[in-house]
Amino acid sequence: MQTLERERAQASFDPRVMSRFLLGDEYLSLQARLLRILESDPIFDQSQVPYMSRKELLRKALLMGARQVALRRHLNWSFDEFEACSKLVDISSMLNLHEAMFIPCLRAQGTPEQQQRFLEPAMNYEIIGCYAQTELGHGSNVQGLETTATFLPETEEFELHSPNLTSTKWWSGGLGLAATHAIVMARLLVRDTDFGPHPFVVPIRSLEDHQPFPGVQVGDIGPKFGFNSVDNGFMRFQHYHIPRDHMLERFARVTPQGKYVRPPNDKLSYGTMVYVRQYIVRNSAINLAKAATIAIRYCATRRQFAADKNETQGPTTKPESPPSPGSEPGETSVLNYSMVQYRLLPALAQAYALHFTGLAMRDQYNDFVQRLAANDVSTLAELHATSSGLKALSTDMLVDSIEVCRRAMGGHGYSAFSGLTDFYCDTLPNTTWEGDNFILSQQVARYLLKAVRRQMAATRCPPSSQGRGNKDSLAVAGNNSTQAYLQAYFEWVITSTAQLDDLNLLLTLFGHRSAALVAQLQRAMDQDHQTWNQSLVDMRRISQAHGQYTILYHFVKTMDVSTTATPEIRRPLAQLWQLLALHTLVNDGGLTDCLEMGLLAPHQASWIRQRERELLTHLRPNAVALADAWAIPDYRLKSALGNYRGDVYERLMKGALHEPANHMSPVVGRYQQLIAAT
Amino acid sequence: MQTLERERAQASFDPRVMSRFLLGDEYLSLQARLLRILESDPIFDQSQVPYMSRKELLRKALLMGARQVALRRHLNWSFDEFEACSKLVDISSMLNLHEAMFIPCLRAQGTPEQQQRFLEPAMNYEIIGCYAQTELGHGSNVQGLETTATFLPETEEFELHSPNLTSTKWWSGGLGLAATHAIVMARLLVRDTDFGPHPFVVPIRSLEDHQPFPGVQVGDIGPKFGFNSVDNGFMRFQHYHIPRDHMLERFARVTPQGKYVRPPNDKLSYGTMVYVRQYIVRNSAINLAKAATIAIRYCATRRQFAADKNETQGPTTKPESPPSPGSEPGETSVLNYSMVQYRLLPALAQAYALHFTGLAMRDQYNDFVQRLAANDVSTLAELHATSSGLKALSTDMLVDSIEVCRRAMGGHGYSAFSGLTDFYCDTLPNTTWEGDNFILSQQVARYLLKAVRRQMAATRCPPSSQGRGNKDSLAVAGNNSTQAYLQAYFEWVITSTAQLDDLNLLLTLFGHRSAALVAQLQRAMDQDHQTWNQSLVDMRRISQAHGQYTILYHFVKTMDVSTTATPEIRRPLAQLWQLLALHTLVNDGGLTDCLEMGLLAPHQASWIRQRERELLTHLRPNAVALADAWAIPDYRLKSALGNYRGDVYERLMKGALHEPANHMSPVVGRYQQLIAAT
Repeated sequence: MQTLERERAQASFDPRVMSRFLLGDEYLSLQARLLRILESDPIFDQSQVPYMSRKELLRKALLMGARQVALRRHLNWSFDEFEACSKLVDISSMLNLHEAMFIPCLRAQGTPEQQQRFLEPAMNYEIIGCYAQTELGHGSNVQGLETTATFLPETEEFELHSPNLTSTKWWSGGLGLAATHAIVMARLLVRDTDFGPHPFVVPIRSLEDHQPFPGVQVGDIGPKFGFNSVDNGFMRFQHYHIPRDHMLERFARVTPQGKYVRPPNDKLSYGTMVYVRQYIVRNSAINLAKAATIAIRYCATRRQFAADKNETQGPTTKPESPPSPGSEPGETSVLNYSMVQYRLLPALAQAYALHFTGLAMRDQYNDFVQRLAANDVSTLAELHATSSGLKALSTDMLVDSIEVCRRAMGGHGYSAFSGLTDFYCDTLPNTTWEGDNFILSQQVARYLLKAVRRQMAATRCPPSSQGRGNKDSLAVAGNNSTQAYLQAYFEWVITSTAQLDDLNLLLTLFGHRSAALVAQLQRAMDQDHQTWNQSLVDMRRISQAHGQYTILYHFVKTMDVSTTATPEIRRPLAQLWQLLALHTLVNDGGLTDCLEMGLLAPHQASWIRQRERELLTHLRPNAVALADAWAIPDYRLKSALGNYRGDVYERLMKGALHEPANHMSPVVGRYQQLIAAT
Repeated sequence: MQTLERERAQASFDPRVMSRFLLGDEYLSLQARLLRILESDPIFDQSQVPYMSRKELLRKALLMGARQVALRRHLNWSFDEFEACSKLVDISSMLNLHEAMFIPCLRAQGTPEQQQRFLEPAMNYEIIGCYAQTELGHGSNVQGLETTATFLPETEEFELHSPNLTSTKWWSGGLGLAATHAIVMARLLVRDTDFGPHPFVVPIRSLEDHQPFPGVQVGDIGPKFGFNSVDNGFMRFQHYHIPRDHMLERFARVTPQGKYVRPPNDKLSYGTMVYVRQYIVRNSAINLAKAATIAIRYCATRRQFAADKNETQGPTTKPESPPSPGSEPGETSVLNYSMVQYRLLPALAQAYALHFTGLAMRDQYNDFVQRLAANDVSTLAELHATSSGLKALSTDMLVDSIEVCRRAMGGHGYSAFSGLTDFYCDTLPNTTWEGDNFILSQQVARYLLKAVRRQMAATRCPPSSQGRGNKDSLAVAGNNSTQAYLQAYFEWVITSTAQLDDLNLLLTLFGHRSAALVAQLQRAMDQDHQTWNQSLVDMRRISQAHGQYTILYHFVKTMDVSTTATPEIRRPLAQLWQLLALHTLVNDGGLTDCLEMGLLAPHQASWIRQRERELLTHLRPNAVALADAWAIPDYRLKSALGNYRGDVYERLMKGALHEPANHMSPVVGRYQQLIAAT
């Protein structure tokens, strides 16, 4: 406790000012209001969750989910309030996909008549829905789905069928136990013509007794790495009939006569993807901040080894005399070790960068929606590509940094009471859903390759073998940040090495590096005939480089344009920015790329490492305050190690005393008999 | 199934020949014999383990542990047979630390009289022991332990006491529920002199009713990330008395008159550490092979997207016509994607490298034991340092590669039936126990810094600022491989760039890189006064570079000296070696270091990337056979996705149908009431 108070006292800025800059007054007061509700209601007490079996967990999450719906009704919550509450509770339940997929899907793809029929009861929780797309045999390749929906003209029905094992629907959240209805993606077959996957609203369980209907086999898919509070399910159809008007008909439909009416060209669904991805990026930011908060507070509290001999004993060193008992004043905070700072402070910087990036993406999405109203989709291609790359980068960063933070806490990080064990497992699906991160990188690269070809055509001169062209001035070909940095690359030659403290110069370096990688791949593919498959590793590298540039861009731009950032918070923010830039160079491939392509010289590399080391020292006194600024309440942290007061060991002890196994089993203790009996 | 048969048919070598080369005939026939026992005994059926609650898991593991002890007795197993069996079962139980720590500790540190008193009943399982060292407040800093053992001359007893919360013993496996005795590390206090931590045998639970004795508070520490089949425990003493002769007295003791008899200088314990570390490296190898086997088999079986258009659809591409239903012949094996090969084949190469390294370490340890008999400890310092670095490198590789393999399996990798979810969690403690990996790197660096200073004194000329000295010939200062590569570095100047297919040249590059890093740090510390704490990140980098060199060295040396490796298995082994070398350069910092220190030029870097891509193609047809060669039986794999036959989807379906939640709860299905009620 004392320790964290000392840490807080030494900060150079007021974390409450930073909190307001990050999150806004409105959100902070909403959070405080919600917390009072959650903390006073025993149903939201999560202290026993770590000890729960799968069934208990499913039930607990369902109850908390139902209570949130009830509160929403009683207190007339807005969607934002409801969402903020569910982020604080932060356990997914069987009902989540009903809110997150079933209802939005009905709204977006149902006709007004269908909305009346399905959306209204769904919003009243009279029916519970899920979204069943992925099959055992097909995930990323949606066009390869095998479930069929065959139009039967005689009865004006569709017959849903699972022709083989691999067509079994798999992974749908809410399907396993909860759902009464599913939106099923199935190949539409009309008179022997296969029109590919389309969405159907399918009643799967009786509203009377919740039993599956004949022709529907459905259940939970069993234990997973995490997300065990959700009933991800499987489903097979055996020639199961639904009425014709259960196909979601807003964009395509089949007439009673069996005529397929084609959908309009649909750029809208890409807009939806952009929306979901900005949400994922913002969510990654706060979750990364959570991991960093826990680890930084714990490592500040944890002490190990005396400050003056902070090294371990090797085989050839022996203590001269019996050492004095290890205790507080003699030992140093683990956060004082440069190796610990090197792991934790960049994670904190990532959280800030992703947060500002997510906010910028939200603005861009809103701008897109406005343009769309005027039939302007000119920003969509760049938005889609960049948001794909950022979804991949942010979720990779998130899951990797959770483990970095957890491991930095040493042995106690392995306890469930660290708060980062189940959290890691529950977070992992972000790297797979809404587009597998590796596959997304191809979409980013495809866009960038096109853009670089366009830029090269505009410069009318191919880049040199070093990857850089001459400095002929040219018209800006695009008005987006991606195109702008590609253009800058073709106009730029390194002239200065000394001013790498200049944030904009560093940002330019990241832009040049990404552009050079794209140009290199473009040459390999267009001139050396490297195939798409041979280029996948390069594409991943490009996607990451582009994402790294983009988050640094949004971070620095946020500081530039802000009218509310005071000098006292600008300083640590700029240090975090620079640390992130240098750390990304050193640890995430940037330095290699720059050295390889001649964007940096070897002596600049050692300078970068040196500057990174210095930044750790500058940031160290503000570490706890920079974590506190995220204002993540203990209720959401769920961590004995990272709680605000820092009474780490008391809470670990309390957690141990609650372990139910401590009241266990007559088998233990009679080993002789046990061995003889077996 | 068909798929894996086709994969096996296209291999260029017979995996059984490779198995014998890797594991030996003796081990393979032992494994087959043990498997027959395990598979015919229902107690060893682990198919229900994924569904178990913590208590069920604790009980199941205990029963399997007891049965193994019974089998050992009945069948008169050797230690090797017992160990091989427990590796196949591969679930730790409450009894594991009894075998792994309590008994060895009594053997090593007890007097003959103490061995009779404690070791014999322990070997008969009349008493069950554990090892209690780590405390809530102290892990790595053993000298800082706070539990006290105060000598009471009046009664010739020690009084064990936990003076504060942080002195609570924590993490000891077997302590939570099972142990009747603990070896407790406590500060020995004799007449106000503190002699630091010493080991005591402490009876903690009654042999009558298994209740803790008065003065001992003990229990399980609660849920963890993994290892939930083990009862890691906590323990506090309240002025608890034990007889004087319960201090383990082989190396130090207290006389009845209260005189402390000092221990002899003890290099032996470092020998034990070397032993444990070679064991961890060998274990890391087979576990990494397990992860790679699962992922390679699954990715060979899994098909996604048509071979001719193996890219995803972006916003601007639309299918021209309704695509044909996705099914087997039209889709390509996921293992054909270069991005998947890039992730999985290096993991496989790591397994081979670690395996050969572990075997070499075992030989080195045996050599050390022989030397020790002749009072020769000259090899110990290098052995200790290198084995520390290899323990850290191998376990970091292992846990990171398990996640790489798991994520390469996409969505289904997240299912517990992948076999890599609990496996990841259970494997993680390897990075912390037996020396935290980050702290171990300091021991490696300390040794290397000494060695490089010695080498510089021998060359009588400091290295140039580029990090390389001149070519003056000099006498070899040491006779170990570490010293040899340090020497080579000071004698070497790059003259050739074209022959990097030469394995020995590549190995030399790794040696030079490691040596250059050490020399660089030595200059920074000795000339520029960089402090120890400021150098921790560099030390970690050095430790990794040294470890990377060492595993490549042992791998290539194994091939060089082998008399049994046929040409047909040498070829894929050499390709794996080269892939590992190039992949390590590109992905684990090697390339950056080499470019930074002038050991490679930029154009060589792109050549390295190109060659790595080609190696993936060369190795692809042998991928499944190179996994099969590890001969890991399905019983040990515990994976629906990675089983030998490849009937992936059938097994996932079977796993889902067993999920107990599928027979759950009247709460589900009555949402209206539920919401109204809450």
